Amino acid sequence: MTSPVGLHRVLEPPGATCLPQAAQRLDNRPDIGPDEVRILVERLNLDAASFRQLSEKHHGDGDAVRAEVLDIIATRGKMQNPVTGSGGMLIGTVDAVGPESPLGLAPGDRVATLVSLTLTPLAVTDGLARWDGRGEQVPCEGHAILFGRSIAAVLPDDLDAELALAVLDVCGAPALTARVVSRYTEKPTVAVIGGAGKSGSLSLAAARLAGAAGTVGIVPHAAERDALVAAGLADQVAIADARDPVALAAAVNGALGRAADVTVVCVDVPGCEHGAILATADGGTVVFFSMATSFAAAALGAEGLAADVTMLIGNGYLPGHATYALDLVRKEPAIRALFEARIATAPGRSVASDTPSQSGRTGH
Amino acid sequence: MTSPVGLHRVLEPPGATCLPQAAQRLDNRPDIGPDEVRILVERLNLDAASFRQLSEKHHGDGDAVRAEVLDIIATRGKMQNPVTGSGGMLIGTVDAVGPESPLGLAPGDRVATLVSLTLTPLAVTDGLARWDGRGEQVPCEGHAILFGRSIAAVLPDDLDAELALAVLDVCGAPALTARVVSRYTEKPTVAVIGGAGKSGSLSLAAARLAGAAGTVGIVPHAAERDALVAAGLADQVAIADARDPVALAAAVNGALGRAADVTVVCVDVPGCEHGAILATADGGTVVFFSMATSFAAAALGAEGLAADVTMLIGNGYLPGHATYALDLVRKEPAIRALFEARIATAPGRSVASDTPSQSGRTGH
Repeated sequence: MTSPVGLHRVLEPPGATCLPQAAQRLDNRPDIGPDEVRILVERLNLDAASFRQLSEKHHGDGDAVRAEVLDIIATRGKMQNPVTGSGGMLIGTVDAVGPESPLGLAPGDRVATLVSLTLTPLAVTDGLARWDGRGEQVPCEGHAILFGRSIAAVLPDDLDAELALAVLDVCGAPALTARVVSRYTEKPTVAVIGGAGKSGSLSLAAARLAGAAGTVGIVPHAAERDALVAAGLADQVAIADARDPVALAAAVNGALGRAADVTVVCVDVPGCEHGAILATADGGTVVFFSMATSFAAAALGAEGLAADVTMLIGNGYLPGHATYALDLVRKEPAIRALFEARIATAPGRSVASDTPSQSGRTGH
Repeated sequence: MTSPVGLHRVLEPPGATCLPQAAQRLDNRPDIGPDEVRILVERLNLDAASFRQLSEKHHGDGDAVRAEVLDIIATRGKMQNPVTGSGGMLIGTVDAVGPESPLGLAPGDRVATLVSLTLTPLAVTDGLARWDGRGEQVPCEGHAILFGRSIAAVLPDDLDAELALAVLDVCGAPALTARVVSRYTEKPTVAVIGGAGKSGSLSLAAARLAGAAGTVGIVPHAAERDALVAAGLADQVAIADARDPVALAAAVNGALGRAADVTVVCVDVPGCEHGAILATADGGTVVFFSMATSFAAAALGAEGLAADVTMLIGNGYLPGHATYALDLVRKEPAIRALFEARIATAPGRSVASDTPSQSGRTGH
């Protein structure tokens, strides 16, 4: 029997002592085990940090970037940038499904993988000939393998693929926000730091839907404030630099009349931990989705402030998270408008990435 | 009015835009505000990582280490190692209490500060003349300031000061473990990774007291297994390398018969995130106390494993945590025996530090 977490695909180090994400090299052969799924790849979305590192290393020389990506995939059997450690996601079409696969996929389904490329066996067969090496979206022919415990979402017919991918990239945030809010016995107030971004706007909508007593979206400047006010996704909108703890706490207190019961951190800049803790009421919850979060800064910050707050590491996976996020977009036209505006103004960027001030999760 | 989090003591950067922990320099003058407390310092316990960096930099030259510590305190108005960013804790006697201090302290109380030295205004008056620069425990004359939201614990009369300090150093872990366990409606099983260490043994005792259905302590080798079995603090004891996810999950499953509902990570080595997630049942909780925890490894690891687990950043503060931990030691003679053995076998080390494989929290 094959391992549901893909241990049987780990070639280096030998002995199956580490998971595929930590492995140096994976077995990317196309034959599938009884619980595996093979996908014909259509496009890779490289993680923004990974593409930036490669592009800067090669001074923007697209041919050199392409050659290195090909070399990484050939050497490692997966697309994991050895410097940044990050990968990305992919879209493709289901090609073969093992008889014991629990993923519910069928051949012909067009899917996005919601697990990172850093743990996905991948082989490229076209030399990435259709990619100029100058953007994060990589047209690609080849195959990828999903394990029993992998996650993939079927792309919906009623939403543009680019919009759907942008939503799926951050779909853990609204699902976890909804869970946290709905578990309060008294309706909590919710502050979303980075409320106009992708994960932020979805989290605001999720908080309201889950019964928040009031919401505030914190944004870095007037343009985002105007966009979020127009979208109507938050009860209040306020401007603050999330790296300034005093200013952030003041903005949240000013908008809600007191500290927030739940604070959701969706801005991908370092140094937001203390502000988020200070903006949260005693007994409250801080959910850190930003991959720029420092574990030590959060742990020692709360201790130093004698803050009795529950701090959650934003898990990108919850059962049903993809469906939940896509449904939010269908229910809230304002979210779709925010996303489409973001996609339209960032034509050169991968839909799986985001500007640093707005991203929920760029570390895929 | 002074700021309860000490903003009024921040000299650099100017403008009170950051909290004392992030500040370059603090105002350490002895005059206290209405909600402040002044302590006459008796001893500093330097953070283990900080002392190691200083000692290695100066090739073990104690005079040079002492000179640099004096220079740091004089320059910054606090003891925060500029390389490691860490500080430590201190013990001393309450000297003056502002009329509006909420800390419940009285002049003459012998206390340990439970907030980090990295945010505590400190002045040294004896040139650290009684310290040879060769150990983490620093006899010291001078004063320190506590803010309205600081935390200090009165040292108990019935426990040896060194034992009490070692317990107070990790007192957030058992308190949070107890809270997590007691919030389950069905009694959960609990795995403590690093169960024979300071925070680990306290967490095992707390889990049992809070009603855990069963506990397992995971230890790295036979000597710790024998010590933990003899202590009787865990229902099961098993040996595994916490950095090997497959071995760790197998050890927990073998001991409990299934994955743990609650997994508490108390080993201060990097790379334990995936194993802790894999050892935890769907819908379960992982509490990360180790300061070696990587936020990204935890977040992306759970996503990559499609693991629906709640992941907590171990907050070092909960109301009543010091009293709770000291009471555990009084109730469980086995904990006292484990701690005393640890103190006895590590005479050159600070009681506030721990060996890397056993520590709960060395980042103070």
